[in-house]
Amino acid sequence: MSQMGRSIPRLEARSKVTGRAEYVHNMRVPGMLTAKIFRSTVAHGRILSIDAEEARGMEGVYAVVTGEDVRKIIPNPYFGPAFHDQPILALDKVRYVGEAVAAVLASDPHIAEAAVQTISAEYEELEPVFDEVEATLPNSPIVHDELKPAGTFADLKHLAGRKNTNIALDYQLRRGDVDKAFAAAVHVFEHEFRTQHVLHVPLESHASLAIPGEGTLTLHTSSQTPSFVRMEIARLLGWPENRVHVKVPFLGGGYGAKVYVKVEPLAVALALIVRRPVKVALTMEEQFYTITKHPVTFRIKSGVDKDGRITARKCDVYWNGGAYADIGPRVAQKTGFTAPGPYDIDNVSIDSYEVYTNRPPAGALRGFGVPQLVWAYESHTDLIARELGLDPVEYRRKNILRDGRPHATGTIMKDAGIDAVLDRIAERMNWSVAIDRGTGRIKRGRGIGIGFKASISPTTSGAIVNVSADGSVVIFTNTIDMGQGSDTAMAQLAAEVLNIDAEKVKVVHGDTDAAPYDMGTLGSRSTFHMGNAVKLAAEDARDKLVALAAEVGLPAGTNYDVQELFRKRYGMRAGNIVGVGSYVPSYTPPDPKTGQSANVTPFWMVGGAGAEVEVDTETGHVRVTKLVNVADGGKIINPKIARTQISGGAIMQLGFTLTERMEFDGGQVTNASFADYKIPGFRDVPPMESELIAANQENGPFGAKGIGESATFGVSPAIANAIHDAVGVRLTSLPIKAEAVLRALRAAQGNPLAEDEE
Amino acid sequence: MSQMGRSIPRLEARSKVTGRAEYVHNMRVPGMLTAKIFRSTVAHGRILSIDAEEARGMEGVYAVVTGEDVRKIIPNPYFGPAFHDQPILALDKVRYVGEAVAAVLASDPHIAEAAVQTISAEYEELEPVFDEVEATLPNSPIVHDELKPAGTFADLKHLAGRKNTNIALDYQLRRGDVDKAFAAAVHVFEHEFRTQHVLHVPLESHASLAIPGEGTLTLHTSSQTPSFVRMEIARLLGWPENRVHVKVPFLGGGYGAKVYVKVEPLAVALALIVRRPVKVALTMEEQFYTITKHPVTFRIKSGVDKDGRITARKCDVYWNGGAYADIGPRVAQKTGFTAPGPYDIDNVSIDSYEVYTNRPPAGALRGFGVPQLVWAYESHTDLIARELGLDPVEYRRKNILRDGRPHATGTIMKDAGIDAVLDRIAERMNWSVAIDRGTGRIKRGRGIGIGFKASISPTTSGAIVNVSADGSVVIFTNTIDMGQGSDTAMAQLAAEVLNIDAEKVKVVHGDTDAAPYDMGTLGSRSTFHMGNAVKLAAEDARDKLVALAAEVGLPAGTNYDVQELFRKRYGMRAGNIVGVGSYVPSYTPPDPKTGQSANVTPFWMVGGAGAEVEVDTETGHVRVTKLVNVADGGKIINPKIARTQISGGAIMQLGFTLTERMEFDGGQVTNASFADYKIPGFRDVPPMESELIAANQENGPFGAKGIGESATFGVSPAIANAIHDAVGVRLTSLPIKAEAVLRALRAAQGNPLAEDEE
Repeated sequence: MSQMGRSIPRLEARSKVTGRAEYVHNMRVPGMLTAKIFRSTVAHGRILSIDAEEARGMEGVYAVVTGEDVRKIIPNPYFGPAFHDQPILALDKVRYVGEAVAAVLASDPHIAEAAVQTISAEYEELEPVFDEVEATLPNSPIVHDELKPAGTFADLKHLAGRKNTNIALDYQLRRGDVDKAFAAAVHVFEHEFRTQHVLHVPLESHASLAIPGEGTLTLHTSSQTPSFVRMEIARLLGWPENRVHVKVPFLGGGYGAKVYVKVEPLAVALALIVRRPVKVALTMEEQFYTITKHPVTFRIKSGVDKDGRITARKCDVYWNGGAYADIGPRVAQKTGFTAPGPYDIDNVSIDSYEVYTNRPPAGALRGFGVPQLVWAYESHTDLIARELGLDPVEYRRKNILRDGRPHATGTIMKDAGIDAVLDRIAERMNWSVAIDRGTGRIKRGRGIGIGFKASISPTTSGAIVNVSADGSVVIFTNTIDMGQGSDTAMAQLAAEVLNIDAEKVKVVHGDTDAAPYDMGTLGSRSTFHMGNAVKLAAEDARDKLVALAAEVGLPAGTNYDVQELFRKRYGMRAGNIVGVGSYVPSYTPPDPKTGQSANVTPFWMVGGAGAEVEVDTETGHVRVTKLVNVADGGKIINPKIARTQISGGAIMQLGFTLTERMEFDGGQVTNASFADYKIPGFRDVPPMESELIAANQENGPFGAKGIGESATFGVSPAIANAIHDAVGVRLTSLPIKAEAVLRALRAAQGNPLAEDEE
Repeated sequence: MSQMGRSIPRLEARSKVTGRAEYVHNMRVPGMLTAKIFRSTVAHGRILSIDAEEARGMEGVYAVVTGEDVRKIIPNPYFGPAFHDQPILALDKVRYVGEAVAAVLASDPHIAEAAVQTISAEYEELEPVFDEVEATLPNSPIVHDELKPAGTFADLKHLAGRKNTNIALDYQLRRGDVDKAFAAAVHVFEHEFRTQHVLHVPLESHASLAIPGEGTLTLHTSSQTPSFVRMEIARLLGWPENRVHVKVPFLGGGYGAKVYVKVEPLAVALALIVRRPVKVALTMEEQFYTITKHPVTFRIKSGVDKDGRITARKCDVYWNGGAYADIGPRVAQKTGFTAPGPYDIDNVSIDSYEVYTNRPPAGALRGFGVPQLVWAYESHTDLIARELGLDPVEYRRKNILRDGRPHATGTIMKDAGIDAVLDRIAERMNWSVAIDRGTGRIKRGRGIGIGFKASISPTTSGAIVNVSADGSVVIFTNTIDMGQGSDTAMAQLAAEVLNIDAEKVKVVHGDTDAAPYDMGTLGSRSTFHMGNAVKLAAEDARDKLVALAAEVGLPAGTNYDVQELFRKRYGMRAGNIVGVGSYVPSYTPPDPKTGQSANVTPFWMVGGAGAEVEVDTETGHVRVTKLVNVADGGKIINPKIARTQISGGAIMQLGFTLTERMEFDGGQVTNASFADYKIPGFRDVPPMESELIAANQENGPFGAKGIGESATFGVSPAIANAIHDAVGVRLTSLPIKAEAVLRALRAAQGNPLAEDEE
């Protein structure tokens, strides 16, 4: 094992720091037009008219395109991975403030932008609904008349044709007998937790450049899922997939904002309408109107026996999916089954609702809904321990789900280091030693939180490993390097198999012609799934090299000179070897009624955090003085990159915990700017320890598995639990801003803060 | 067989006629500079100084680069496929008029061109040598001090270090006992034939765009050999091959002008020096200074027995390779062994010399030297038949090399339809019926010529066939479509295997990352070699599909629905299948002394022509009134494209026969313009019949083989033989312009034309 565990610098580091790395935003091609988008100002309404007269007449404006224009070339212009519900440009109705209604095309983006400002639209306003629980009530306004599942996922097909409901998906899991268990429980605890509307904030916003050919199309796009984009564009156009070529250069972050399909259909439709290359590149502000993270209302109820063992858990989760489903139904379903948390509970009931509202669409964001669930169940866990007078670590140890035991789905746990992660957090937090609780206005406390996540299933990844006659190697993969270091990880895996240095491997990512299908760079699946595919492809190449060596009479073994090998075979420097790998983990689809499955995931991700905080009891200000992040990443391919991932995930979740919240006035986002919406800066990063436990994922490539999301799980509840530990108040909504803490403190003192007082 | 034999339109036809097809000349990228070249005005000289002061000072000029500048970043800047003899920019010496000496870089090509005009150089002139025979004489000026074989081809290595010779390669073949056979012969005939200096004239001249990365390089180039370009650039830079990415879009013709490496090293060197993208795009005129076809002097001598059987043949061939070897040594060697022609001769001696001179470099041009040889041996054959009073067709039938008989190399002939081609020409020429011989000043005659060619060996080709989940297919190949229809042919071959319509296949050509190694699109090898590779790749994909079908429980057979198959496997539309094919024909290297080999080529190409001419005896003007072209192409993949190839080859050779000649004043080309250098236009095309005999190439893909060069073989001698038949004079040099015919007529009448009289 010479390449596994090497902390080599990222392969693309030099090209990034010198500015040579390619991004869609920087691409220019001859004849290219840039599109700017006119967006809805109402949250729910019928489009009566769009006035683009002035824009059309402006010098330098090439065209103004509306939904009706799109419909002329794409008769059914609705897209989406789970539901075909989102129009390329609004048709008939608008369903959220910021929805794309028209596009202006010009060579000069500034002219296009100026022209957008002259467009106006008239709407017949309809009553909107914003809250995920309210939207499920009988008399709620209805966002979509009818459910239109995409057919992509066989298990969503039964929803087709459902009318007059905002519940896009109602997932349920039943295990054991919850009612009976609650009746028998010594203690029953019930709480409700909520999370806020936040967004991904990749520093590169969405950009697509569509270049039309003759019955063909090349699409450069900032996507985490080129294979899906190709399928979806081909479907929209009614073309075979091989007529659509999707290429993805580097991404400036993704975090789930760029999964499935976002601005690609618009870029494609515009390019086909004007028969010229068209770029759609969103501003940072437009991210607020494109894709967000689900706000969640989670009602969690537990029955506990006299020994403190959890015997029953009921979870009701409402996911605010916004106006278009995106991958939301899959979040409610695939993440929904982890709602009871990493605990060994015999009787479980889960109801998880993906709900349409008139908010911006919500989709996948680092953790695919898991951080919202962990926030709730780990706050709940702490409240139970506190109520029972038990140490929160000990209480968790008593209930934790260990390898060999069945998960709520019935799947037997394997290679899930839940206990190991818990132990390591306790160790790093020095949990057995009491902390200084503070004096005066500053109080100190500590807390922990751990969570877990299943990997997405069913799914598949393919890779090609091409060995040249000089022994140099190119990997083809549709796993996209968006800063997480996947190119480097794949190079290390292939190099390990081929017994060469990883630095000698070139990785070509994001090319739907050249690289095989991959489901997407999402759900922390790439190290495991694509890693296995790359390993298989490299093994295929190695086997072919060994066969070639035998053919030319070289001694058995793998220690031959590749150049010599090819020269012997071809009489000159010529030829190459192509290895192909395709990985499909085994999977058992869950029973649709009970959610039971013998094999619901190929691996589990586990992560947790421990936090120490200081709370200023006069201002409510919370300062995190220590943040410990621990994850189980199986065998680690590149420790330095892995640790950076863990740190990054924790910092991201720290923003969602303490500062980030999209503010709304009705349907209008009032802080759609990164001056007003506060993501963590360098000075907001607390003293942190990020580490990975030594583990092995048996079916992973050389024992590895994904870690991209694991560090987001525990941060929010660890901090809330620490605050409770410090000052005795419980925050049940995110974010935990000073005002909220102060309100809770004052309420606890019987001296509540007035609504407009801060 | 549903796809073989279908005359579908070329896949890229629409994109070409609408102007959407991509060519390097049209490419622009941000920051790109264009290079223009300052060229030598002397044929042989030492560079004393280069004055580029004024150019460097011109507004808009970014840089002026000389050979010394190149040497700073590429210490050994000599390139070439057979010899490393050609400097990227002239170093120390210049060796022909038009050699690249310096390059000017500017954003605006017009500024670069204007700046080139201000550059001057001082040379110490050296005595030049231009004639291929003179250059082999003892006291000739020496073009290169020492031979530097590249090491690419193992069988050229022995030439390393040879000094003071212009003979770059002396190939010899010995079979039987020629001296003894000549001594025993009843008749001995000896003639000398010559061909002129001509060039390829692709309507797209050479263009390369080099884009530097961080220790990497992307090179878009108009090349027939992307895999070789990658190897050669990597070698020059000392980089692993995977750091060099060569991409080739469509070519506007190649004909051998774009094989191996031409302007690519210059584009690369300039891009690395200025660290910006650099395009080198030659003008049509610059083609005259880049690559040409070998002028040849061929002394051929035959011994014939009393029955008219040829018993001995001695061939001395001098190839004028110009100042740099390019692939010339390989022409002298690999084509040299076919010099005795398609005749069954027991005693053969061949000496074939690749000779350096101070002319522009000569390389491969449609036929790789074979048309020059056929011109000579079929003129010679006709002279023998005429001398013996035998019908030229009957005389050939008596001596022809039939399947099952050994060729001069000892290889037993197989699937070479030499007799069938001869018979078909005779049939189409209505040979058994006498023609109207003409009256008055117009005389009529007819003639034929047939030739053959071995395929290049050793060599290999690889291909990838990628099947998407919707059943659509992408082929990856480094065979370049340059108008010959290779994309369409490959699509038909893959479609035949996969049982789909060829129109549903997309072909990606020219990408050294994505497509496997291929030796090059040259020597009519692609249909056979790449065709076999594509067939193998498609079969690999088909086998994997069949295995997948069995895995998901579909009934055996290949008539399943591919979409259904993937859906069953993955529970959704996902996945794909990658098939890989690599083809290496068997080959026995010839004995270096005797040229004998049991297996010198995987297949033979056979082509011939019959011509009827009218000669105006007062002006010498020759009008071709009928031209019959017949070739053996094995099983034909696409008859319409194949016939167009045959016609095109014949028309090209017609130009070389009647009108084309580079005129020289010393070393200076005096007609480097297509106003003065006359290629055939539409009005020059005679009434033609082009056809392919029904045949089968047993080891070819579905029985197919190459036809790109076959129609060039017979045209020149058929016309010369027809002229002889018409007016009784023999032309022994090409081209056969009216003046030459008139001179020959007047000489035959004992009334020679004065040198300056026309």
